[in-house]
This record gives sequence, C-alpha cells and structure tokens, in this order.
Amino acid sequence: MKLYSMPSSGNSYKVRLLLALTGQPCDIVDVEDSSPALEAARTAGALPFGKAPVLEFDDGTKLAESNAILVALGRETPFLPQEPMAQAQMLSWMFWEQNQHEGVIAVRGALQFYPARRHLATPERMAELLSRGNALLAMMDAHLQQNDWLLGAHPSLADIALYGYTHTAGSRGGFDMTQFGAINAWLARMAAQPGYIGLDDPQPTR
Amino acid sequence: MKLYSMPSSGNSYKVRLLLALTGQPCDIVDVEDSSPALEAARTAGALPFGKAPVLEFDDGTKLAESNAILVALGRETPFLPQEPMAQAQMLSWMFWEQNQHEGVIAVRGALQFYPARRHLATPERMAELLSRGNALLAMMDAHLQQNDWLLGAHPSLADIALYGYTHTAGSRGGFDMTQFGAINAWLARMAAQPGYIGLDDPQPTR
Repeated sequence: MKLYSMPSSGNSYKVRLLLALTGQPCDIVDVEDSSPALEAARTAGALPFGKAPVLEFDDGTKLAESNAILVALGRETPFLPQEPMAQAQMLSWMFWEQNQHEGVIAVRGALQFYPARRHLATPERMAELLSRGNALLAMMDAHLQQNDWLLGAHPSLADIALYGYTHTAGSRGGFDMTQFGAINAWLARMAAQPGYIGLDDPQPTR
Repeated sequence: MKLYSMPSSGNSYKVRLLLALTGQPCDIVDVEDSSPALEAARTAGALPFGKAPVLEFDDGTKLAESNAILVALGRETPFLPQEPMAQAQMLSWMFWEQNQHEGVIAVRGALQFYPARRHLATPERMAELLSRGNALLAMMDAHLQQNDWLLGAHPSLADIALYGYTHTAGSRGGFDMTQFGAINAWLARMAAQPGYIGLDDPQPTR
C-alpha cells in the first residue's frame, strides 16, 4: 500500500494516524501543498480528485477522500463498529466533519498557515469563520461533555476524522480552546491511545 | 420512520428520492428554509446538527446528514454494493460530494434561489464559484463519458447523492450544462429509473 500524503494537512494526517493506531504498514509519498511533488502526482494521474490523500493499493487501485480511506482501512479494526446504527452515526459525524467542520475550522487555519492563501484572510472572513467555528466547537463540546468518544464508550473512525483538524483549531485556527474543556479532555484521550502519532511525527515502520 | 425534510433542498431530496426508488414508506415533515417549522424542530431538539434532513426511526433514534441517511436506508437494496472496494469508492464520491461539489454547485444555486442569501451573491463570489464549479462538473463529465454510473454498470447511492444538486446546477446554479453531455445523459438515465420522483413531486405513499 502507498499513501499520497500532504504532510501539513489534517486530512492526510487522519489516515496516517489510523495506520499508526492499527499498526498497518504503508509507504508514504509526501506531496506537500504547492510542491513540485504534488504537481507531478497530479500530472501522473495518481490523484483521482486532484488532491491528497489518496491510498493506492498493491493492485494499483486508487482511493481518494480521507474519510473513505479511513473506512476502507478501518474494516476489521475496533475503530469501525459492526452494529449498523453505530456505523450510521459514525458516518453522520464523518460527513458533518467534511461538510461543516473542515470548511470552517480547517479553512480558518489554512488561511493563516499557508503563505499563498494569506491574502484571502480578510478581517471580515476571519471574523465570520471564528463565529461559525465557535458554534461548531460548542456543539462538539456539549456532546463530549456527555460522552468520552463521539459514539459513546469507544473511539471510532469518527473521532480520528474529527481529531484531524480539531487538534490544531487553537494553534493554527486561532480559536480560544480554553472555552472547550470537554474537547480538550477528548484530545488528551486520543493522544494517550497506544500507537498514537502527532501531525509532525514520522510514520512508524514495522 | 419520519423524515425532517427541507422541500427546496437537494440534500433532503436525495433521501426522498432513495425512499421513492426503493419503495420505502416514510412520514415526511416539511421544515422549509427560514420557516417557523424549521425553528420549531430545532428548538424541540429534533435536528442533531441543527439542519435537515434528519431521519427519525420508530424508536426515536435520530440520524443526521443526508449521505449517512442514504447509507442507512440503502442497506439491503441494490443501491449499496456489497463488495468492500465498491463500497469504499461509493463513499469516496459521497465525501467528495459533501466536501467539494455541494460547497460550490449547491452554494452557487442557493445564493440565487433563497432571497435571504442574495446579498451574499457578489459578482466576485459568483464568478469564483462558476469557475470552480465548471472544473468539478468537467471532472464528473469525464468520468461519466467512460461509465454509465459513477461506480460503473449500476446506479448506487453515489449517483443519488450527486444527482441531488447536479440536476439543478443549470436551473438554479446558472451553470451552462450544454458543455457536459455525459452528465446530461446520466441525469436522463436517473430520471428514467422506476419509482423516480423529481424535487417538487409529492412523496408516494403505499
């Protein structure tokens, strides 16, 4: 297996985190934002939707979209619940992550983190993203006040998907995370999981 | 089963379309954009993420997010392939729909369709959405030139998910769909499916 991964991206990190937590070996091909390697991978047709991450299986099959890759790699692991309604609720959080959370929390971070995007970070836009992001984080926090993990007692792919950009909401996105005690406790629970790696940690080999 | 559905929304329509195509009966509760009914449903706690659609099962369990609802309702139907890699590719299209397609194609339509949002439809924003949307539609069109359906020979939940907003990309979004012959042929194939209903058609009862 080979993962085309953007090192600075939360979407790519989600997949590397699941690989590490489950001890699955995988070759990592770095395709950083705005890099020649990313452009080369695009030109070579390695990225079906033109973006990372993409997982390439040994038979050459390519799978795009971080959360679809999580589901594919999460099969037969404790991170994908077997019960149909639990699976449905897991997917609900994961679609919410891609449709609501990522477009606000990750985007606010990206506008400040990537030099090429800083001209888009107008005061009006940053204020709007701050307000919307705080509402989304408050909703997560309220849920996590009642539940150790998004689905209840056990961590699932939904936690890994939401962890990807929530854990840099303060450092990159400029959100005041001191408001969200239950999120902070949940972030700490994830970081204490056996096999955990941080965004900038090297991928373990085995 | 009860579906909280926003009549004018492509996300709600996807679910009503799958229900119709598979002959599943369901009570429909209309919660139109900016309506007192939507606000009442929010206040009553009927909408976990504050938006429609939400499916409420007979035991009171609520499931949010259109594409998660499609997966839950699509089990045991021909629209959810059993083979794991086909399921993964189906989810890949569905996450792409929520992360890329909906935020451009649906948003451009919504900015013109809903009076309360028209002040956000600045010429710069509409031009940017047009350019990004044309690139997304061109990618779909290229894929559909080679495949009758997104996964190949048979329609799946991915087609229903993408149909939701693609079929109004011209009428609401202002995209010139004459450029996209393969998309138009795919739209026509979907509209010819047994049980098909349009966005404004009443839900069949049985």
